[in-house]
Amino acid sequence: MTHPAAAAARTDTPAYDGLAALFQRLHHLEHLQAIVSWDRAAKMPPRGNDARAAALAEVATLMHRLRTEPRLRDDLARAEQEPLSDFQRANLREMRREWLLSNALPESLVQRAQLATARCEHAWRHQRPANDWNGFLGNFREVLATAREEATLLSEQSGLGRYEALMDRFEPGMRCAEVDRIFGAVRQWLPGLIRRVVDKQAHEPVQRPVGPFPVPAQRALGEQAMRLMGFDFSAGRLDESTHPFSGGVPEDVRLTTRYRDDEFLMGLLGTIHETGHGRYEQNLPRAWLGQPVSRARSMAIHESQSLAFEMQLGGHPGFARLLAPLLHQAFGAQPAFEPDNLHRLMTRVKPGFIRVDADEVSYPAHVILRYEIERPLIEGEIEAEDIPALWDAKMAELLGVDTRGNYQDGPLQDVHWPEAMFGYFPCYSLGAMFAAQWFATMRRSMPDLDARITRGELAPVFDWLRDNIWSAGSRWPTDELALRASGEALNPAHFKAHLEARYLG
Amino acid sequence: MTHPAAAAARTDTPAYDGLAALFQRLHHLEHLQAIVSWDRAAKMPPRGNDARAAALAEVATLMHRLRTEPRLRDDLARAEQEPLSDFQRANLREMRREWLLSNALPESLVQRAQLATARCEHAWRHQRPANDWNGFLGNFREVLATAREEATLLSEQSGLGRYEALMDRFEPGMRCAEVDRIFGAVRQWLPGLIRRVVDKQAHEPVQRPVGPFPVPAQRALGEQAMRLMGFDFSAGRLDESTHPFSGGVPEDVRLTTRYRDDEFLMGLLGTIHETGHGRYEQNLPRAWLGQPVSRARSMAIHESQSLAFEMQLGGHPGFARLLAPLLHQAFGAQPAFEPDNLHRLMTRVKPGFIRVDADEVSYPAHVILRYEIERPLIEGEIEAEDIPALWDAKMAELLGVDTRGNYQDGPLQDVHWPEAMFGYFPCYSLGAMFAAQWFATMRRSMPDLDARITRGELAPVFDWLRDNIWSAGSRWPTDELALRASGEALNPAHFKAHLEARYLG
Repeated sequence: MTHPAAAAARTDTPAYDGLAALFQRLHHLEHLQAIVSWDRAAKMPPRGNDARAAALAEVATLMHRLRTEPRLRDDLARAEQEPLSDFQRANLREMRREWLLSNALPESLVQRAQLATARCEHAWRHQRPANDWNGFLGNFREVLATAREEATLLSEQSGLGRYEALMDRFEPGMRCAEVDRIFGAVRQWLPGLIRRVVDKQAHEPVQRPVGPFPVPAQRALGEQAMRLMGFDFSAGRLDESTHPFSGGVPEDVRLTTRYRDDEFLMGLLGTIHETGHGRYEQNLPRAWLGQPVSRARSMAIHESQSLAFEMQLGGHPGFARLLAPLLHQAFGAQPAFEPDNLHRLMTRVKPGFIRVDADEVSYPAHVILRYEIERPLIEGEIEAEDIPALWDAKMAELLGVDTRGNYQDGPLQDVHWPEAMFGYFPCYSLGAMFAAQWFATMRRSMPDLDARITRGELAPVFDWLRDNIWSAGSRWPTDELALRASGEALNPAHFKAHLEARYLG
Repeated sequence: MTHPAAAAARTDTPAYDGLAALFQRLHHLEHLQAIVSWDRAAKMPPRGNDARAAALAEVATLMHRLRTEPRLRDDLARAEQEPLSDFQRANLREMRREWLLSNALPESLVQRAQLATARCEHAWRHQRPANDWNGFLGNFREVLATAREEATLLSEQSGLGRYEALMDRFEPGMRCAEVDRIFGAVRQWLPGLIRRVVDKQAHEPVQRPVGPFPVPAQRALGEQAMRLMGFDFSAGRLDESTHPFSGGVPEDVRLTTRYRDDEFLMGLLGTIHETGHGRYEQNLPRAWLGQPVSRARSMAIHESQSLAFEMQLGGHPGFARLLAPLLHQAFGAQPAFEPDNLHRLMTRVKPGFIRVDADEVSYPAHVILRYEIERPLIEGEIEAEDIPALWDAKMAELLGVDTRGNYQDGPLQDVHWPEAMFGYFPCYSLGAMFAAQWFATMRRSMPDLDARITRGELAPVFDWLRDNIWSAGSRWPTDELALRASGEALNPAHFKAHLEARYLG
């Protein structure tokens, strides 16, 4: 329709305002998506699944249509010419980024990729326990083929490398050259560090807690730990799911964890990890909620929050002192709950097969291994059938463990590859490095930080994170966020120093 | 767009198929709406409310747009000329009904009405406990004004009376003349029956259960009762909320109840009531899910299911025998759990102020009173300020209780009026009458029905309801559904006979 009055009315309204209204609508639809997705993982009975999948597909289609309306190209261009505040300009930058990602891939490819990952992920649930690598390979080749097509198109649009273009979806601005530089350095010192820590800890006996640990007591303990860490229960909840996650929306954060009654640390540390994600979401800039600029900066920055909580604080000797009385209360007195023992327990290093069970020191080895496999995989330098041999060699080299023939605890262990989440893995270790950098910065400005944590004062940590990370949302690109927060871009030296101080100091 | 090829393509596709696809999309959006609405009542933390309200408004707007697309008028007309199966034709009838309701009211009026009810309902939450009738009146006048406007427009469109047109939204096909006839008869015999039952029960001592009744034990008991009544937990859940309800979708039914630890019957009977609603939803015609013809027939038929479970079965002497061992297991042995005592407890008649706490015998008096007030209110024969005097007079006449000055337990007790749900109340008692009619029909074809229930065999009841009510969805208008199920349209004589047999027999 080109009625002159309508055209005139349209140019009267700033294009930016129209875009802001569109993104507000998308925010409402994302709310529905987030809550029903949480429900699917945490509450939904099994026979609800087909109807739920259809409802989620409907809202995804609606959102895709809104994000790919042809007039947006022109609206974005016009808005860039309008007078805008700094925050609005940052918001517009994030709008363009979301628009580019939504419009880069033809719908037919997106649908083929979704079908391939749905099939592969569904079969993987049974193939993993059955150690069925060959069965997995049949589906995974198709996942890989569509992921390579996506990488090629994203690369052509952005000028980035193919793997880099996939990684950029999760970690905007991060480049392979930098990951190579950082991981290349870590790979030099990590195997030696792991060996030294394991040797040192062999002389430090640790007493194991004795179960059972009733699930209701674990639930109550988890909520106490979340309160200790400042989670706002008037704007969020803790529930249970097979795989812990942080979901919901900034106004209503839904965390999940899982419990086993013979062990409580897995559930508790999972809860603390997700609480870091949750507090970031709860403290994003509220005045901008609903706009892209209010979102969490990147997945590495998100993981830097969960790891600040789980590793930097959870593994702190002062934190064991805070936790000990809660454990007494939850499970009764045990010698293992003595703070020094508890701290040793929470910082035990033991190279193993499984990434999600890995300690803070050996974790980066798992990530580097995946990066060194998935990048050449996407770039066509290796094929899916080459994975097991590479996996075995790198596990032996980096962690000294033998994984031959054990696919279920090897390349079949993660959901990322069946779900085509190529480019995500680096965020975990980049996040651990950012977390160490944040704590190094805090210690510079608060020399008594460790003493305060040991006295049970966690507020200085949370205040710093809120002022420097949470409240910024996506106001600045990641490099600038890091620079403003800590005086430098990502510097992995802080992570190495942290591990050496904590584990060899 | 009127490109000739597009126009040709459009007439090639049956209009019915396009409508079916549209209603399938609406079903997906209703799924999102239902699950997040359940979440809001059962799980959402308080600070999530504003974002939730905005997200729900967004999806309501989307659905309204889909239902009011101008081309639907033509599509419906064309579909009515197409060759269709009986089920498709019934589906088309229900589509037209939904389309008429969605298009009858201008959006500005719908928005004004929503604002007025939101304001009134919000203030009512505090005004009710404060017994603040005058404060309520200030907001309620606006609610009434917009409801009268809606009634007038719906009446003009449908040719029904004004109150009738509002009632028709909940109970399609029900007319005021019939309600007048039915309630007019009930109001003749009910006060006398209540007095006789109360006199009779005064000579039948009943032993009260002794609390506390721990909530976890009540929860487990409720789930056992739901299993006993055939609820499918693979396609539904039980949770808690301030006001019990049955929500979710047919594929995933979400029931809620509430608990007090000094009393267990309220929570248990609430659960059994909602289980009746839930089984209806779980057993709607699955082949047609997503289409209007698959929906529950009407609110009176829905209430006939919840009351078949809560009253017809729950108040059956055989049911007390089934329940007794579950109560022993949940709370330990008590003399009050002896089946005969339990049955007396569950059928105790005591006229009181509160509708939702009323027994089966005095309940219709509450409904008749509301009908006799809200109908002239909508039709402009009385004004909002006339309500208390009418309320007091009718409570004295029908139930022999004195409500003067007690607004909080009087006209302020229900959420229906602040929410402008005028025309809903009759469905409760029409549902109780339908439930009695279903059981009378079952007894004709299964003379040993009561003996079987007493032996713990509930399957014949559920099988009959599934075959005659649940699986029919909206295949037939209500009168025809009743005729096919029981050989006659609604006949309130069965309800009177049921009350006399149970309470005076």
